Amino acid sequence: MIQKLIEKIKKTHAPVVVGLDPTLAFVPGHIKEKAFGEYGETLEGAAEAIWQFNKEIVDHTYDLIPAVKPQIAMYEQFGIPGLVSYKKTIDYCHEKDLVVIGDVKRGDIGSTSAAYAAGHLGTVAVGGNTFRPFDEDFATVNPYLGTDGVQPFIDVCKKEKKGLFLLVKTSNPSSGEFQDRLIEGRPLYEHVGEKVAEWGAGCMGESYSYVGAVVGATYPEMGKVLRKIMPKSFILVPGYGAQGGRGADLVHFFNEDGLGAIVNSSRGIIAAYQQEAYASFGAERFGEAARAAVEAMVQDIEGALQAAK
Amino acid sequence: MIQKLIEKIKKTHAPVVVGLDPTLAFVPGHIKEKAFGEYGETLEGAAEAIWQFNKEIVDHTYDLIPAVKPQIAMYEQFGIPGLVSYKKTIDYCHEKDLVVIGDVKRGDIGSTSAAYAAGHLGTVAVGGNTFRPFDEDFATVNPYLGTDGVQPFIDVCKKEKKGLFLLVKTSNPSSGEFQDRLIEGRPLYEHVGEKVAEWGAGCMGESYSYVGAVVGATYPEMGKVLRKIMPKSFILVPGYGAQGGRGADLVHFFNEDGLGAIVNSSRGIIAAYQQEAYASFGAERFGEAARAAVEAMVQDIEGALQAAK
Repeated sequence: MIQKLIEKIKKTHAPVVVGLDPTLAFVPGHIKEKAFGEYGETLEGAAEAIWQFNKEIVDHTYDLIPAVKPQIAMYEQFGIPGLVSYKKTIDYCHEKDLVVIGDVKRGDIGSTSAAYAAGHLGTVAVGGNTFRPFDEDFATVNPYLGTDGVQPFIDVCKKEKKGLFLLVKTSNPSSGEFQDRLIEGRPLYEHVGEKVAEWGAGCMGESYSYVGAVVGATYPEMGKVLRKIMPKSFILVPGYGAQGGRGADLVHFFNEDGLGAIVNSSRGIIAAYQQEAYASFGAERFGEAARAAVEAMVQDIEGALQAAK
Repeated sequence: MIQKLIEKIKKTHAPVVVGLDPTLAFVPGHIKEKAFGEYGETLEGAAEAIWQFNKEIVDHTYDLIPAVKPQIAMYEQFGIPGLVSYKKTIDYCHEKDLVVIGDVKRGDIGSTSAAYAAGHLGTVAVGGNTFRPFDEDFATVNPYLGTDGVQPFIDVCKKEKKGLFLLVKTSNPSSGEFQDRLIEGRPLYEHVGEKVAEWGAGCMGESYSYVGAVVGATYPEMGKVLRKIMPKSFILVPGYGAQGGRGADLVHFFNEDGLGAIVNSSRGIIAAYQQEAYASFGAERFGEAARAAVEAMVQDIEGALQAAK
C-alpha cells in the first residue's frame, strides 16, 4: 500500500491528504435539512448528514489527491450510526481508488492490539468465514505502550500489505509536556522516532517503509531532525492550515527525492466555504470550495518544494 | 460516579473489576452454535455470541462486584455488529447497576478528544435533541498528547459526574521502552503520574478524585511509588491473574483506608471454565465458573489486604 500511496502522489503531484473530519457545524444547512427530514434529529440523521457531506467532498476532490484521512472520533461521537457512516466513507473512498488512512490512534497491548489491527487493517475469522470489518489502508497508532502494542499492527500490515503512522510528535500546543522531555540529552520524540525507524526497517516497500510517523506541521525544526532519524519512513504531517502550518514550514519534512511526507488538511479543505477566501462559493457549492482549497494547498506545498530545490 | 464506585466497593468488599474482553475462543460451543444458527457465521453471528456470553457472565457475577471493564477492541474487531454488542453490554451492565469502565484508551487533541469524550462519556446534540451515544461511566485515556488531549475529557467528566483512568504505567513487558526512560533522574511514568495528580486535584469527589490512573499489577514496586505520587487518584490495576499479578503484589496500590485501587481480571474470570482449577464446571456452566473465579480473586485480594494491616 505504501507503493500505491507513492505512485498516486507522483501522479497527482500532490503530497496531500484531505482530512474527512466532519462536524455538524461544517455541514451546510441544505444537507442537514434533507438528512433530518428523512431520519429526524437523531444520531441516524446526523450520521446521514456527515456521510452525504463527505460524499460530496470526495466527488469534488478525488482526482486531485492520493489519499483521505477520516478521523474516527468525529464519527464515533454519533455512536453506532456514526460508525456506519465511517465505514460507508471508507468504502466510497476505495471505490474512488483513494488510499484511506484511518486516523484511529489506537494502541493497546498484545491480543488487544491484535484485535484493533484485525478490525481496522486485517481480517477476522468467524467459523469458516473471514471478514474485513473496517478495511482502512493505513492506521495511526499511539506508541506509548511500546513494542508489545505496535508489533501486532506490524504483523497484520506485513500480511495485508498495509501500513501505519505512529505518533511521534503531535501538532498540538501541549504536545511537549511529555514528548519534548529530555532523555539522555534528547527529547522523547527522538527516541520514539528511532523506534519507528527500527520497526520500519523490517517493513520496507521498494524505497520507503510502510511503518511511518506522525509529526505535526507546527514543529518544522523538529520535523527536520526527525526526517534524518527516520529517512525511510513516510511522515504524515497534520496541522497545516487551520492549526497554523504553511507550505514553507514543510520542506524539511520531505526527502531530496521530493517524497517522504504527506500533508493533511481537514477543516481548511472540508469547511473552506466557511472561510472568507472561499465564501463566494456559498454553502450550496461547498464541494467546489473544497476543490479550490485543495488546489491552493497543492500549489502552496509544491511551490515551497520547488523554491527549496 | 467515583462516589458510586467507592460505595459499591465498600458494599461488596471487592475492589475488583471484571474485564469483559470476549474472544470467540472463550465462548462455549453451545452459545456459538445458537448464535451462528440464527445469524450465520457472520460478524452479526460473532457479535451475538459475545453478547450472549457477556450476559451470562454478568448474570452470574453482578452481585459480587462493583464494576465491569469492557475492552472495546474485542468488539471493534467485529466491526459495526461488534460495536452494537459493546453498547448492549454497557446498557445491560447499567441495568444491573454496575459501574462501567470503557477500556477505550482513546486520546487525541482538542476538538477530536472532545468528540471522543462526548461520544463515550457525554452527550451529542443533533438539532434540538441530545443523545448519549455509548454512555460508559469511566473511560481509559492515553496521555501521550499532553493536557490538550486530556482536558476535553476532564471537561465532560466535570459536567457529567463521570471519570477517567489515564495510562501511567501499563502492565505489558515492553511498557518500559518509553515509560521507564529517565527524565531529570525519574522515569517518565512518574512525570505522567504527577500530571495525573495535578489534573485530578481539580476533580475531587468526597475523598478521591475522579481522574484516576492505570498502573499494571505486574509492576508492584512502581505501584508503591505511584500510590504516593497520586494519593487522591484511584488506580485501575490490570494484569492480575493471566498476566502474572497476585493479591500479595497489590497491597501497595491501596491506601491505608483500604481504598484507592480497583483490580481488573479479564480472561482469568470470563474464561475460568477453560482453566484446570475450574474445569469441573464444564463449558455449559461457564457462568458459575466465572462466579467461583471472582470469589477466589476477592478472597486473594482481601486476604492480602488484611495480612498487610
